[in-house]
This record gives sequence, structure tokens and C-alpha cells, in this order.
Amino acid sequence: MKNFLGKQFLLHNKTAQQLYHDYAEKMPIIDYHCHLSPQQIAEDTRFETLTAIWLNGDHYKWRAMRANGIGESFITGSKTDFQKFKKWADTVPYTIRNPLYHWTHLELQRYFDIHDVLNPDSAKKIYDSCTAALRTPEFSARNLIRKMNVRMICTTDDPVDNLEHHQKLKKEKFEIPVLPAFRPDAAMNVDNAVSFNNYIERLEKASGIAVGSFDQYLSALKQRHDFFAKNGCSVSDHGLEVIYAEDYSENEIKNIFDKLRSGQTPDDLERRKFKSAMLFYFAIWDAEKNWVQQFHLGAMRNNNRRMMKQLGPDTGWDSIGDFPQAKSLAKFLSRLDNEDKLAKTILYNLNPADNAVMAAMIGNFNDGSFPGKIQWGAAWWFLDQKDGMEKQINALSNMGLLSRFVGMLTDSRSFLSYPRHEYFRRILCNLFGEEIERGELPDDLTWIGKIIEDICFHNAKNYFGWEKLKA
Amino acid sequence: MKNFLGKQFLLHNKTAQQLYHDYAEKMPIIDYHCHLSPQQIAEDTRFETLTAIWLNGDHYKWRAMRANGIGESFITGSKTDFQKFKKWADTVPYTIRNPLYHWTHLELQRYFDIHDVLNPDSAKKIYDSCTAALRTPEFSARNLIRKMNVRMICTTDDPVDNLEHHQKLKKEKFEIPVLPAFRPDAAMNVDNAVSFNNYIERLEKASGIAVGSFDQYLSALKQRHDFFAKNGCSVSDHGLEVIYAEDYSENEIKNIFDKLRSGQTPDDLERRKFKSAMLFYFAIWDAEKNWVQQFHLGAMRNNNRRMMKQLGPDTGWDSIGDFPQAKSLAKFLSRLDNEDKLAKTILYNLNPADNAVMAAMIGNFNDGSFPGKIQWGAAWWFLDQKDGMEKQINALSNMGLLSRFVGMLTDSRSFLSYPRHEYFRRILCNLFGEEIERGELPDDLTWIGKIIEDICFHNAKNYFGWEKLKA
Amino acid sequence: MKNFLGKQFLLHNKTAQQLYHDYAEKMPIIDYHCHLSPQQIAEDTRFETLTAIWLNGDHYKWRAMRANGIGESFITGSKTDFQKFKKWADTVPYTIRNPLYHWTHLELQRYFDIHDVLNPDSAKKIYDSCTAALRTPEFSARNLIRKMNVRMICTTDDPVDNLEHHQKLKKEKFEIPVLPAFRPDAAMNVDNAVSFNNYIERLEKASGIAVGSFDQYLSALKQRHDFFAKNGCSVSDHGLEVIYAEDYSENEIKNIFDKLRSGQTPDDLERRKFKSAMLFYFAIWDAEKNWVQQFHLGAMRNNNRRMMKQLGPDTGWDSIGDFPQAKSLAKFLSRLDNEDKLAKTILYNLNPADNAVMAAMIGNFNDGSFPGKIQWGAAWWFLDQKDGMEKQINALSNMGLLSRFVGMLTDSRSFLSYPRHEYFRRILCNLFGEEIERGELPDDLTWIGKIIEDICFHNAKNYFGWEKLKA
Repeated sequence: MKNFLGKQFLLHNKTAQQLYHDYAEKMPIIDYHCHLSPQQIAEDTRFETLTAIWLNGDHYKWRAMRANGIGESFITGSKTDFQKFKKWADTVPYTIRNPLYHWTHLELQRYFDIHDVLNPDSAKKIYDSCTAALRTPEFSARNLIRKMNVRMICTTDDPVDNLEHHQKLKKEKFEIPVLPAFRPDAAMNVDNAVSFNNYIERLEKASGIAVGSFDQYLSALKQRHDFFAKNGCSVSDHGLEVIYAEDYSENEIKNIFDKLRSGQTPDDLERRKFKSAMLFYFAIWDAEKNWVQQFHLGAMRNNNRRMMKQLGPDTGWDSIGDFPQAKSLAKFLSRLDNEDKLAKTILYNLNPADNAVMAAMIGNFNDGSFPGKIQWGAAWWFLDQKDGMEKQINALSNMGLLSRFVGMLTDSRSFLSYPRHEYFRRILCNLFGEEIERGELPDDLTWIGKIIEDICFHNAKNYFGWEKLKA
Repeated sequence: MKNFLGKQFLLHNKTAQQLYHDYAEKMPIIDYHCHLSPQQIAEDTRFETLTAIWLNGDHYKWRAMRANGIGESFITGSKTDFQKFKKWADTVPYTIRNPLYHWTHLELQRYFDIHDVLNPDSAKKIYDSCTAALRTPEFSARNLIRKMNVRMICTTDDPVDNLEHHQKLKKEKFEIPVLPAFRPDAAMNVDNAVSFNNYIERLEKASGIAVGSFDQYLSALKQRHDFFAKNGCSVSDHGLEVIYAEDYSENEIKNIFDKLRSGQTPDDLERRKFKSAMLFYFAIWDAEKNWVQQFHLGAMRNNNRRMMKQLGPDTGWDSIGDFPQAKSLAKFLSRLDNEDKLAKTILYNLNPADNAVMAAMIGNFNDGSFPGKIQWGAAWWFLDQKDGMEKQINALSNMGLLSRFVGMLTDSRSFLSYPRHEYFRRILCNLFGEEIERGELPDDLTWIGKIIEDICFHNAKNYFGWEKLKA
Repeated sequence: MKNFLGKQFLLHNKTAQQLYHDYAEKMPIIDYHCHLSPQQIAEDTRFETLTAIWLNGDHYKWRAMRANGIGESFITGSKTDFQKFKKWADTVPYTIRNPLYHWTHLELQRYFDIHDVLNPDSAKKIYDSCTAALRTPEFSARNLIRKMNVRMICTTDDPVDNLEHHQKLKKEKFEIPVLPAFRPDAAMNVDNAVSFNNYIERLEKASGIAVGSFDQYLSALKQRHDFFAKNGCSVSDHGLEVIYAEDYSENEIKNIFDKLRSGQTPDDLERRKFKSAMLFYFAIWDAEKNWVQQFHLGAMRNNNRRMMKQLGPDTGWDSIGDFPQAKSLAKFLSRLDNEDKLAKTILYNLNPADNAVMAAMIGNFNDGSFPGKIQWGAAWWFLDQKDGMEKQINALSNMGLLSRFVGMLTDSRSFLSYPRHEYFRRILCNLFGEEIERGELPDDLTWIGKIIEDICFHNAKNYFGWEKLKA
């Protein structure tokens, strides 16, 4: 019987333990995609309570609480921070076997050195102790990042963002680069003409370019792309149900744009054409600047109309879609490749039924120009758990080169999510360890240890062109 | 080397064995969805032969026999009961690694205390011994149910059923409630105008309402819904390829109905609109009565035209479809939720590729109003086996709250299927046991034992509102 | 710690080891579907270098090299054989956990008795030693086949092939039958009128029948089907994205044919109708001759337009599709069954998300006329690895009869791929062994050993009607 969450957590044999403790554990973290607030890093925020840093904004926990029968007033409502926390503590024992159970206790251990189990009995003590700690300088936003041995962070930013916080951090020479990432979802979302025109207004302000025509629209966006690059950005990201790859003519796109500007929402096919065009333009710009482009595919968002009205997006009502992905994805990538404009690309899928499609797809565009040029990204969102990670690692191993994988990212809004890297690394080492002990891999820890280190750090470092980062 | 199907069957470590024997084993069974014949329970049927109770109507066994090259005369044909049984015994060794191999021997052990392996050599002895037992009162339908510690049964019934058997059972005060469930598949199946009109004729008779218009059609069905409720029903069920959620107007539905009544089968879109409307009405009624509604999604039925003509439906020619499920399901549930008419709901999927879609979907409508209000149902039909159960339990754990799961049901036509609950419970305990021993869960059997008991019994009891049932 | 790739490779308990060494290991190989070159067998080719036999034409290795950042000149380009091999040796350590890592070393062991690990250091020695061996008679094409205890080979041949090599082999009485298989993909590919008409020209030459009308087209193809049968063929094969099962009339097909002959490419629906008709004709002919028909479903080919232009098809730019499969497959098989024209059939899927669909589908048409009449084929292409095999074996076990499975095939272009049978057999024995030791199966090795032998050899022998083959 092993201790819960002890030193050898998830490491079920000696070789796995050696691989983790001798190789993986000491590698720094490159968080090449997350949703941390640049403002909070820039302001080096201190959080008032454990609820403020841990529950507010965490829609994973919210979903669990709702599934546990907790009312909205204790989740997003007006109850006090401790009342909310107490309901979370009530819920924690019911999250058994959910990744939240592991995250929760790993985070309490790693940040707060608390080794108790969180439940209704321990709630008060843990809340008080963590809240007190959080108010000390040691637990400021930047120190939380430092504590976790993070070497680099990419946030996720809209093209209209002025990047003032990134600039402040650079000016202040915060030793951990915090770079923006270009996420133009709003710029291609033409499902509603009103929102789209509002967005253009913001874009005009940000870019200083008046947008009367589609060409001016492109110019304004391109100005932002350039501006992001000047501010250290070398990564883009897109959140989409599917890759749009309809055939279209430039004229059609211009007409659709004019239709939108006149206040009319285009029909379904027109919307897909417009999105196809925009995706292609963005990809071309990424290639021209040698950026890495990321595509998060397959989420079905805002499924609960009532709660969407009440709470808005990103509050825990999103889900996994079952859209066909393969054909349009291949068509899009092939078109770019054919014009020699295919940037380094990372594909993330939300539906694990698409794992094999993704694992095989990347091989169609890995053309020898860079090791692992096209990547299948780490298990994401609902799949960001042991089973999901193992399946992604195994499918990638079986159909591609795990050794060239750029590895884990947090994709989190929380400063307390960095132990997910540890979690990933333990799982990774355990898989290798088991196969070595079973004689399915050679017992050569020097070589395999190096591969582990590559997946934890060096591959991302080289892939994103941040070779100067030191391990 | 463990004995085959011994005391610790499927329990591969001490903790799992403790969890099973100290907690799971003793819990009674709530069979909230099955296809047992109310008539046979009401008449307390004694079965003539082992073939009569075990092979007749069991299309799982039939498929295995056909795949083994056994001709139809030995399956649904005119051979004697023993001749049929002998062919089944010939087939059993070929079912190795199929759940039938486990079910078969578990059922022989639990009901008949027979610990031999069934094969051609043991066929005669086992047949004679079981057949003799079956003719004694101890093996009557009711006593078979009692033997398995069943506390509650929900059958599956058409709205036109007069529920006489359920009434008889109630009148006789059979100590195990046998309640009807409302399954109106025929009432929304408009793929054939002739069958639909025949059904309406039966509905008119059952309800005493003449159906000239769509409104009267609804009234007649609503009358049956009320009648079912008066007879103890609090559960509905639907067997569908997908959830239909087309947009429609009331007028359209009325026109489609009139078209049907005039003998014309509607076109494809009209059929989907009609089904969408009916699904919505049924769901509203369920919500108004605080029933639990169940949706069995993804079966593709009657794939073999020749055998459909020869044997009719439900004779072993059904299969797993690969229909898109997510969008229409979300749309349907959201519309209900938005009108505050979303009843407690259990979703079952037949294609395991949809597991993640289902596991994530329920979270979109769990709004805190009841713990586990929206459920993802236990592994079903083709998935009702160890691998299928483990995948369902794991996906539910990873994306939702396993602790709030209402657990296992038989979904069976056979009085000998109750050991499936034991099978499920052993698998469940084994998963927990392994993780506890590996340090992935705390070693706290009091707490985890309670969760096991909840999943085996209390969750279903509370969910369905049968709080009076005693463990 | 077990030795890498030692005697008990993949066999993780005593029972598995007994099953493998006492039963599976000694069974001969029936390679009922592969892409070996009949010409090379007929000419008993000796290969100039290890690169010639091992790297040339092996798009699995090519994809791995490209993903590893190796340029095309070292893969399909003009570099020397050793330069290419060196780049492969550089890549091998990066293939860790990919099946290539296992195949590579298994092949070095079994054919060349080399037990070193291939990496940059050992590259020269291994290359020289294998190349020297390959130039000796012991390593001629036929001797490589003999070495692996192969009893029968089916190649894959276009209807227009003259089968001269098969005839030569028969005439020379090569003791291992090398039979053709009828693969008429080109005969139903009407996506391009020019290619189609070129193909008809070749067909006219091969059949000696002038093709002016659709009826003549059918006659010419039927002539080839008959010709193949006369040359020992009893197996057909089709490589398709999906089964086409559109409704069509004979007149429509004739019109589409005439359109094609006049140089026009039909529209999308017409193409699907034409393909549906052709598939049906082929299937009828197969049934009439009591052939076995195979369908390889779900590959999405030639995804990289640029590389397609540069290198042509089958050079490593294919991938896994996510097409709906169930409905059209059931419709096609049911139509054949209904007309009593359903031949023995093997279905292969490339997307593992379709595993359950396939495993359940075969049961709809297993009608008792032959054990395992409709088969779900072994894990294929991207799935031809441990995880893919285990999933196929498990899904087949859970939803059908593993005991009636016709087992492994190579599907390879390489004379060095036969150890894949060993790989499959070890995995198979390990699954049985584990369940026996865990008490999930009876400890009866005589019986289970026989089932293993059946899956390795006898089932295929009986299924394909090659009962005379000796184990």
C-alpha cells in the first residue's frame, strides 16, 4: 500500500522513479500556452483569500460543485469567500477519481506544504492557513511562478489588446519572459453582425486604421500581428469547432464583409467561407514571421442558453463536440504547404475519439524541414487527466515520434496550476519505466532520460526558437 | 493462479476484496430499467426448461451461436429445447473472452449453485439439473427475483399497455414494487404511415379518446402518461438513433400529422420535425411530473432485411451506429432547461466513441438543483461488459462525479441476469482498490466504502425518489 | 527487469509463455493479404543492400524520418544507400515507443541474428553485415519466405495484371502457393475521366474485349475476374474511404459511364452512384465464385498535394479519416444478403474510433451458414501495433467470437515483415495468459491452446478453403 500522493506518486516501479527523480523533476517549465492574466503578473497581485485565487474563475471546480447539487449563489453568486470555499470543501470528497481530486491535493502540497486531505472537517483550517500565506509577499503572482521553476510564459491575447502589461513586465525586466500570443477568434467570428461590427470598432481604435473595406480590415489586423511580433509574440492560437476550409473567391469574401458591415449576418455557407479565408490569412502571416500556430479544435461552447444569459461565456457550460475533423484539416494544411506557407503547427483535439486522426494527420505535413514540425498537442481541457494524457502519449508514440513532442502546457487561468507539469511528467516517466522493466524497451536510462528531458523542456525550447533558455 | 470465477473474481487486490465483500456485496438491487415481462412476474411463471428461461428471447446468445455457424433451426426454429441447448453448450467454449462466457457461469453459480464449466460434455447434466430445479417453486419468477435481493423493478411499457399485470402485482402486495416505465417509441415513429395509424387505433382504444387531430393525439398520449403515473410510473425511456431537435412550428406538426392520417408517409425532414416535437412534449410531461427520463441513443436496428422479414425485430440483427450526437442533444436539453422544463435525465450511448461526448454533456445541464441531476447511464448492451463498464466508469470519473452515479441496471429480458449487478460491483471495487493500493486515492475505506454503497444503491434510491427503500 | 526483446518478449506471465511457446510459436503463417511483389518472388530476387530491402518503399520508415527532420534526399532522393541507411539509424532511437522500434529489432534478430540495438554507433556494422548476408542465396526472396515458415501468400493485383509471375511460380512448383488477389480499385475510381479512360484502354488490352458500353465494361472486368480465378485467385480486396451504397438505376449507371467515356468527369453524387454499382457487381461475382471479399475502409489518401506531385501515391502522405461508416456498410451488406449473394467478408477499419461499429456490424450478417462468415479484420496500417492489436482483439472478444477470428496478416510490401505474426501471437497469448492467471478464464491450456492455434492458422485455413495446408 503506497501513501496517497507520496514521493513516488504515479511512479509504480523503480525505473519510473529513477527517470522522474533523476531527469524529469529538475527540468524547468516552459508554459507556451496559458490563460494567466498579464495584468496580475504585471501588478504582482496578492490574492485576498484562497477562494480568490483558487475558486474564482475556475469553471472546472464550478462544474463539479453544480454536479454535486450546490446552488449558484455559492459558486458565482454573492456568498462570502469562506461560504463558497466551504461548499467546495464539501464537494471535494465527491470528486474522487476526478482529476480535481489530484490537482487539489497536489496544489495544496506544492504551494502551501499542506498534506491534509481537504474535506468539510479540514476546510476551515486549510482556508485560514492558505489565506494567511497568500497575503504574504512569498505568494504574490510572480513568486508563485518563480516557485514552480517556470522559465517562460505565453499568455493568450486578443489582437485589439494594447499589451501594456507585457510591456511593463519587459520594462521592469521580470526575469521570466511573459510573451503575448495572438488569438484572433473574435476577428473571424461572423455569426452575429452586431458583435462583429463592435469588434471592428475596437480594432480601429487599437490599430489606428479606419476599416471601410475588407482590405482595410486585413491591414488593421496585420498591423496588430506586427505589433504583437514587436512585443515578443511568436505564437498564435485559435479556438474552433473545426478547421474551416471552404473554397472561396476574394470577391465573395469582400461581399460577405460588406454585408456584415451593412448589419446583415451572412448565411451559414457564407460564414464558413469567411472563416476559411480569415484562417488562411492568419496562417500566412504566421508562416511569414516563422511563428508557431496552434489550433484548439472540437469544443462545443455555451450549450446552456439560460446560464449563458445569466453568466456569459467560459463559466462551465462547454462541452465536447463530435464534428468531422479530418478532411477540412488536411485540406487547409495542404493548401498552406503547397504554397510553402505552412508554419510550425500544433493541433489540439478535445474529443478523444479524434486522437488517431490527429496522431496520423501530423505525419502528412512533417516534411523533414524541422524535427516534429507539425505537432499533436498535449491532452487538453476535459482530457487533461491521467487517462487522457496516457491515451495522447500512447497514440502519439504509436503513430508518430513521442521523442520530438513539445510536451505539457497548463492552458490554465490559475497561478496554482503548475503542478500539472509534474503530473504529466510522472505519468510520462511511469509509461517509460513500465516498458523498460517489462523488456519492451532497452534498459538504457542515459538515453531514455535524455528523451524525457527533451519532452519536458528542450523540445519546446528548440521548437519555439527560445534556444537561449537555460535548463 | 486464481481459481476461475472464485470468491475474489475480478478483485485483484486486498483493498478491492474488502470494498466488495464489506460494502458492495450486501447492497440490494434497484433495477430501474429492464425488459422483464410483467406478465411472467404477475403469473409467477415457472419455466419448463433451462432453454425456456435462458435461451428463448436472448439475442446475445443467438448472435454468438450464429457467429459460431449454428443454423437457425437450433436458435429460433423448431428443434427441441434440449437440441437447442446442446448447440448452445457447443458454442459456449467458443465464447471465451466474450461477456457471455462470464455471464453464463456466473448465472449457473448464483442461481443453481453449479460450478462446472458448460461445454458439450457437461451439457446434459447441467440441462437436466437446472431444468429440474426450474420446475420447483423455489425457481418461480418471483423467487428468482427475491433470491437476488432485488428491491425494486421498473419494466418497459408501451403507452397503450393497460398495465393489468402491474396492477395485479400491486393488489397482491408483492413485496418488491414492479413499476411500469413509459416508453413511447411507437408514438413518434412516423417512418411508415400504415404502422402509425395502426398504433393510433390501439391508442384510441387504450385511452378512450378518438384521435382526429394532432391535439387529440396529444390528449390521448397525455391520458396514458397520467394513467401510467397513477399506476406508480415515474420513469420514461426512449430508444433512438439520435435526439431529434429540428426547428418546427406547431402548424407544421399538425400538417404532418394530417398527412400521416391521410395515409401518406412524410418525407425525411418532416419525420425529423415530427419526432422533434414529440420528444419535446414527452419531456415536458416528464418534467411536470418530476419523472426521470432516459434516452438510449445510437443503436442502428434491424440491419438484416432478410432476417427482419423472417424473425421480426429484437432478434439479434441490431448494431452500433456512428451518428453525430452532440449538437442535437445539447440543443434539446438546452431548450428544455431554458423553459425550466428539464426533468432528471439519464443518457445512454451505444457507441463507445461517444463516451467523452456524453461524459462532458451532462455537465452542461447539471445546474446545482439536484446532485447528479443529469446522469450518464451505465454501459449498455454491446458495452455491458468489463471493458465497456471500465471505460464508462473511468470517463465519468474523469469528466464528472462518479460518486453521484446511479449505477447499474440490467436492461435485460431475462430473470437470470441479475448477477450483472455483482459483475459491475466487482469491477467498480477493483478500480477503487487498485488506485488506493497505488497511492492514487487515500486509504480510507469508511469513506470510499460509503461511496461504493451509494453507487450500488443509495444514489438510485434518492435519485428516483424511492427514499423509503431500505438497504 | 526483463531483457529487451528476449525470449519472453511481451509475455508477462508463465501461462502466456506456455501458450506462446507450446502452441502459437510453431504454427505456420498464412499471409492471406500482402503487397509483396510477385515479380520479386518469381525472380527470387536477391537484394543489393539492407537499404534496398528495408528502406526502399517503406513509407512507415519514411514518415518517421521526415518527422525526425531528415530531408527528402536521404529518403526518396539521390543519396547513396549507406547515406540513407545512416539517416535511418540516426532516427531509430527517436522511434522509441513507436512500433518501428520493435519491428526493427525483431527483424534484425529473426532474419539476421543480430541482437544489437540499431543506432548511429552500430549503423555501419549492422549495414555491412546485413548487406553481406543479403547477397548470399540464403537471403533470396523465396528463402526469406521459407525462413519464416510461411505456407501461403496472397498478393494484391489489379484486374489488368497478366499474372505472369504467379503463373511462373506455379509452373516452377514453388512449394509455397503465391496466389493473386483481385483489387479493382482503379476500375471504380471515376473521380477523373482521363485516368478512367486510360484504365479502360489497359483493360481492353488485358481482356481482349472492346469497351464501347457499360455492359462491355462489365464483361471485360468479368473476364478478368474469371481469369484471376483460373489462376488460383479466391480473394478480392478493396481500398475505400467508405462503402458506397447509394440508390441507383441501371440506366443512371449507363449514362454516367457514357459521360465518362465522352471525357466528362461526373458530379459527386454520380460518382458515388457509379462506385455503389461497381461495388455491388464485384460483390456478386465474389459470391458466385465463393471467394472471400475484403474491404479496407477509412484511409484518407494523398493529403499532401505538393508531395503527391513530387513523389506520387503510397509514399507516406496518407492518414486516418473520420467518415461515417455504419449506415452504408449495413445497407450494402444487407442488400447482398437479401439476394443471397453475400460472400464471406472481412472488414478492416483504419480509424480505431470505428472499432465498436465494426465489431458489432459483423454480427448482423453472421447467419449461421459458416463459423465466422463475416470477419472483422486484424488491426491495420497505423493500428498495426500493440495497442491497436489489443484494442481490436478486445473489442472483437467483447462483441463477437475471437475464437473464430482468422487472425493476422502482414499487409506489407517487405519481405522482412513476417515477424509481425510473431508480434501478434505474443500479444494474443499474453492477453489470454493474464486472464487465466487472474481467474477470469479457466486454467485449461489444452482447450485454450487449441483456440490459439486456430487463430494463428486453422481458422484462416478453413475460412479461405485451403484445408489441404498442413500445420
